Amino acid sequence: MTQDIEQSFEILKRGTVEIYSEKELKEKLIDARKKGRQLRIKLGMDPTAPDLHLGHTVVMRKLRQFQDLGHKAVLIIGDYTARIGDPTGQNTTRPVLSGEDIDKNAQTYFKQAEKILDTSEDKLEIRPNGEWLRDLDLAAIIKLCSSMTVARMLERDTFEQRYKKCEPISIHEFLYPLMQGYDSVMTESDVELGGTDQTFNNLAGRDLQRINGQAPQIVMTLPILAGLDGVEKMSKSKNNYIGVTDEPSDMYGKIMSISDEMMENYFTLLTDVPFGKIAELINSEKTHPKKAKAALAKDIISQFYDSEAAEKAEEDFEQVFARRELPDDMPEAVLDSQPIALSKMVAEAGLAASGGEAKRLVKQGGVSVNGEKMSDPSAQVQPEDGMVLKVGKRRFAKVVVK
Amino acid sequence: MTQDIEQSFEILKRGTVEIYSEKELKEKLIDARKKGRQLRIKLGMDPTAPDLHLGHTVVMRKLRQFQDLGHKAVLIIGDYTARIGDPTGQNTTRPVLSGEDIDKNAQTYFKQAEKILDTSEDKLEIRPNGEWLRDLDLAAIIKLCSSMTVARMLERDTFEQRYKKCEPISIHEFLYPLMQGYDSVMTESDVELGGTDQTFNNLAGRDLQRINGQAPQIVMTLPILAGLDGVEKMSKSKNNYIGVTDEPSDMYGKIMSISDEMMENYFTLLTDVPFGKIAELINSEKTHPKKAKAALAKDIISQFYDSEAAEKAEEDFEQVFARRELPDDMPEAVLDSQPIALSKMVAEAGLAASGGEAKRLVKQGGVSVNGEKMSDPSAQVQPEDGMVLKVGKRRFAKVVVK
Repeated sequence: MTQDIEQSFEILKRGTVEIYSEKELKEKLIDARKKGRQLRIKLGMDPTAPDLHLGHTVVMRKLRQFQDLGHKAVLIIGDYTARIGDPTGQNTTRPVLSGEDIDKNAQTYFKQAEKILDTSEDKLEIRPNGEWLRDLDLAAIIKLCSSMTVARMLERDTFEQRYKKCEPISIHEFLYPLMQGYDSVMTESDVELGGTDQTFNNLAGRDLQRINGQAPQIVMTLPILAGLDGVEKMSKSKNNYIGVTDEPSDMYGKIMSISDEMMENYFTLLTDVPFGKIAELINSEKTHPKKAKAALAKDIISQFYDSEAAEKAEEDFEQVFARRELPDDMPEAVLDSQPIALSKMVAEAGLAASGGEAKRLVKQGGVSVNGEKMSDPSAQVQPEDGMVLKVGKRRFAKVVVK
Repeated sequence: MTQDIEQSFEILKRGTVEIYSEKELKEKLIDARKKGRQLRIKLGMDPTAPDLHLGHTVVMRKLRQFQDLGHKAVLIIGDYTARIGDPTGQNTTRPVLSGEDIDKNAQTYFKQAEKILDTSEDKLEIRPNGEWLRDLDLAAIIKLCSSMTVARMLERDTFEQRYKKCEPISIHEFLYPLMQGYDSVMTESDVELGGTDQTFNNLAGRDLQRINGQAPQIVMTLPILAGLDGVEKMSKSKNNYIGVTDEPSDMYGKIMSISDEMMENYFTLLTDVPFGKIAELINSEKTHPKKAKAALAKDIISQFYDSEAAEKAEEDFEQVFARRELPDDMPEAVLDSQPIALSKMVAEAGLAASGGEAKRLVKQGGVSVNGEKMSDPSAQVQPEDGMVLKVGKRRFAKVVVK
């Protein structure tokens, strides 16, 4: 294997949970290089949830990496099944959509996907699966279904759990993985990308391709991104997400809110920052995770906007952050406009019981003016309207000049 | 319920294993009478096995009873699925048939079915299910599949056993019961008949009709007829069957060969002989089951031929039966053409070691000539070519006159 193929492989492997199989992926990369052909990298798009958040971008970024290595992204729009929905009405993730809705959602999706994918004509192919699914008749469907056993289907995580819990599984639910596999046959995909929740469906594609005389696609699974809360997966309904159309300042603030433990995961899945650099940021800055998070936030904002917007977002955040420390309902300290000794100011503002206590508080380092710590009780301070006097962690006063 | 409806119900109930439900059947009968409408009685026909044997006639006789009560038989030819066969090739009962084969088989079937069914136009409707199945698209099939759960499907005897034994069940096998149920929807059947092996499939029809806003069909199951061996079910492949095109003499011989225990079952399922009469035949004639079997054989032959043919078959059988007692390779006894004393004849034929032993044997009643017992050793017998001399149970000689 030449060095650049090895390098490509390492880029592609980053962040993946599983590759079925690494060996086959390497062989495909070598074969593609030798024959000067593009690999066809399939990704299914759900037309019911067009708004993209960072959770979606994990696989899309992987797709982009393939594109950057010269390969072709094949986006499948599940329009056919979206038109049908779930006939039982129980699966709320499968509402019935009109053709109009699907078109509108697809438009929204692609407008947002452009932020991540290379949309050059030779790098992107978009295929609604109704193109081939609408032509399937019962004979073809029987053939399709004959390629998979019930036992194998019930091994699938979600089915297994539901079956054990005696929760009803309707037979049509068995058809979806087969249809998804059939999409792979019809688009002759070389690689299919998906979250770990799609592993089973995507492996079905391997089976169906084999039966139809095609080389089975490589299946690469990527982790499901945790939401900002670090508990649930990122999703719009949990309101723990960062949308790709979020304003830079929102992105910045949301990323600053994640827990320190989540940083490494976000760096790995949402940026191209090399592993060495990530370790450095997270470990050497251990006492200042805020800086590592700021670096993460700026990297991500730069992807969707630019570095200028990222810097601006940081500045805004810092200002807001500083302001945010202050309570909304501070008591006012009405003072003369003359400069005044700090300890006296503290006492007059009512933040200490006496001048003596005020002096001690200042000496102990518990007093700040406009966020700046001051430790000399006799330092002269010029009172200004809106000046914030802080004692300890929770006592504040806002200066009003007479 | 009027008396004649009650009577109809009793006729229809005869021999059934289960009726889902008796109450609904009575209601349908009453409703049909009130509205002057025919009930539509559905029976599926398997185009892969056109030759009918008595096993098939159990349900067909039930269908005929409905016809005789004024209702309409709706025969479904499973042509669509026969054209597909089993894509896995594992289910040998589902070979792929050409349209030509199916037509030929259907012709054979109907020619034989005419012996049992009323073929008047207003009593019989024949529908190939390709008529509606070929128009099903994926959306319709998803809808169809959504009406049944995996758990329910796996409760079915054969599936349950195979699943527990870890024998592969392909997903397409789940589609057949649904298609069969869809046939009921499309033909608006009021009653479906079938063997007990079809219970699950036929009940699926009830579910699908309900979902489609139709009154659910009554499902009547009939027992699977035991083969002549009394062990396996009657089938061509086991060679334990009586074909409806068998010659009267073959039918007669085959029925005479069944065990005494099977008679009641055959009487119930294959004749209209009233229960009281059956009991009488079987119980009072307990020491002569041959006579009860002869009555059974003649009844059945009369159904497919006429009573004259039945009588003739009995006579032929008796002759053959008598002849059949003789071994094929009897030693020859070459004798003079003069009359001769029986004991001397026995000795000369080599069936006794001496004249004395021969006399004793005759006196003991162990000697017969042409099947007629003779006990006088000195009786004069006129030797004839082919005359059979029998001593005890196993010693024979055939006379050849010098």
